[in-house]
Amino acid sequence: MEFRLIERIRELTAQPRDDVRIGIGDDAAVLAVPAGQELAVAIDTLVEGVHFPRGTAAADIGWKALAVNLSDLAAMGASPAWALLALTLPDADAAFVEGLAEGFAKLAQPHRLALVGGDTTRGPLSISVAVHGFVPPGKALVRSGARVGDAVLVTGTLGDAAAGLHALQPPLRDDDPRASLREFLIERLNRPTPRLAAGTALRGQASACIDISDGLLADLGHVCVASGVGAEIDAALLPRSSALMALYDEAGALQFALSGGDDYELCFTVPAQRLADVQADLSRLGCGVTRIGRIVEGAGVRVRGTDGEWLTTDRAGWEHFA
Amino acid sequence: MEFRLIERIRELTAQPRDDVRIGIGDDAAVLAVPAGQELAVAIDTLVEGVHFPRGTAAADIGWKALAVNLSDLAAMGASPAWALLALTLPDADAAFVEGLAEGFAKLAQPHRLALVGGDTTRGPLSISVAVHGFVPPGKALVRSGARVGDAVLVTGTLGDAAAGLHALQPPLRDDDPRASLREFLIERLNRPTPRLAAGTALRGQASACIDISDGLLADLGHVCVASGVGAEIDAALLPRSSALMALYDEAGALQFALSGGDDYELCFTVPAQRLADVQADLSRLGCGVTRIGRIVEGAGVRVRGTDGEWLTTDRAGWEHFA
Repeated sequence: MEFRLIERIRELTAQPRDDVRIGIGDDAAVLAVPAGQELAVAIDTLVEGVHFPRGTAAADIGWKALAVNLSDLAAMGASPAWALLALTLPDADAAFVEGLAEGFAKLAQPHRLALVGGDTTRGPLSISVAVHGFVPPGKALVRSGARVGDAVLVTGTLGDAAAGLHALQPPLRDDDPRASLREFLIERLNRPTPRLAAGTALRGQASACIDISDGLLADLGHVCVASGVGAEIDAALLPRSSALMALYDEAGALQFALSGGDDYELCFTVPAQRLADVQADLSRLGCGVTRIGRIVEGAGVRVRGTDGEWLTTDRAGWEHFA
Repeated sequence: MEFRLIERIRELTAQPRDDVRIGIGDDAAVLAVPAGQELAVAIDTLVEGVHFPRGTAAADIGWKALAVNLSDLAAMGASPAWALLALTLPDADAAFVEGLAEGFAKLAQPHRLALVGGDTTRGPLSISVAVHGFVPPGKALVRSGARVGDAVLVTGTLGDAAAGLHALQPPLRDDDPRASLREFLIERLNRPTPRLAAGTALRGQASACIDISDGLLADLGHVCVASGVGAEIDAALLPRSSALMALYDEAGALQFALSGGDDYELCFTVPAQRLADVQADLSRLGCGVTRIGRIVEGAGVRVRGTDGEWLTTDRAGWEHFA
């Protein structure tokens, strides 16, 4: 069992990289970072019942475990190269392992990401992935570079994943006209798309960047703390999908967009003089991008409602152990 | 909570490395591999109730989670540099987290290993560590290089950790004369010493190398499969500690030495003409080293008993999901 998942993913991805000097099957992998590149590394764990509901399809778990890590590379402006995977599962369920491998490989393949090692153990279901990517020296996108006057932008739409989690219960009948809208939201929850192309396009352009895993308010708040600034955002500007707006009222949709986790969109800041160029660059990549506010003096994130009044929020995104 | 463990380990280790360009606190760490070095990476998970008994001290878990990974680097001949840590624990237990950080840091410190990132989540207790080390191009110790006629050697003594696990129950009274012997074995279980100095000394010397995590027979078996050879070892030559020999009879001690996991000693092969030099080099480092057998044509590992007859074994070390 020890290496069957790892080997199976290797079979499914099958992308030889000549920077992998020794791959799966020895005590450690041996890798060559290209000259003139630095190494970006991140690790994230998904635990059943915490990060995904019991009953989530194995392929969705495999995809998402890689996606949340690639999203961290995207937020640094790094290009993915290699991954390690540590899987803990209660028993040697061949169908589950095959599904997990397929989901992981489906996301790995287009990014030419090579799985170079891993570990499988018995225990309660959880999966940790460590990813490695390349970024030119000094070009990584950090959280600490936001400056007063910068515009605040996000990719894609916000709140879909949290609404998808909410929409999982109760299941709708297939002939319910809202079923396809819910499907869209659940797909956003289970198969997030890491914004890798946007991340590399933002190198040298964005002053700060983070991926939205805990919710816009929480994650933009991290940028504000790291940069020593505050932020003001306009509720009316928040990009929200038509599925979200069709299935939830304004208050519910706003709550999901402000505080819902798991979207894995990028939130970033750009000096005013580069704003138009950045928006054009990302649009050219087919990546939706929306200006939602600006960086101000002070601390914390304030939200202006559609009536022009400041909102009070009782909840700044979900935090583990909060 | 998210970063308290990670931050606490950083405080306790406090070793700035100038190859860490961006450390803990952003979406990913950014690292610079020194020119002329390749990167060795490995990941291993410890799960409560599988890899350590419930009730194991937090500091022992923190130490061991790093040790088992550093042992993988040792087996490749790599020098440690950086680690990522993913912890899942049932609740935010401050004393537990502090103990874990202390145990991890105590082993990290002398090796100048920097923790560069991590993730803490809620769930059943488990800990995954990914380690990164450096090795000169082409110098990594692989499993596949053993050749017929090579000597088979191991560092240290074998079977102590498995005996330590066995000795945990029932606890002895403090005034029992055997208590200190058991303490030694339990320490070997909980605080394994990765053989990093031996590993780097074996670069260019050993023809194959592996660390003993699943037991001598299982791990030497991996070397034989990877190298396309067989091995013969002599039971009489197996290095065993005086504590093991005092607390168990010959049959029990032999079983632990052949099949017990968790010793994290190195098992390696050396061409005959380099044998004396290698033994002298490792002895000079204060690392015990013992020739236990030789590589032969064929496949599999055979053990010659003290009476000169081949032993039959019903169990080749413990394998997960076996």
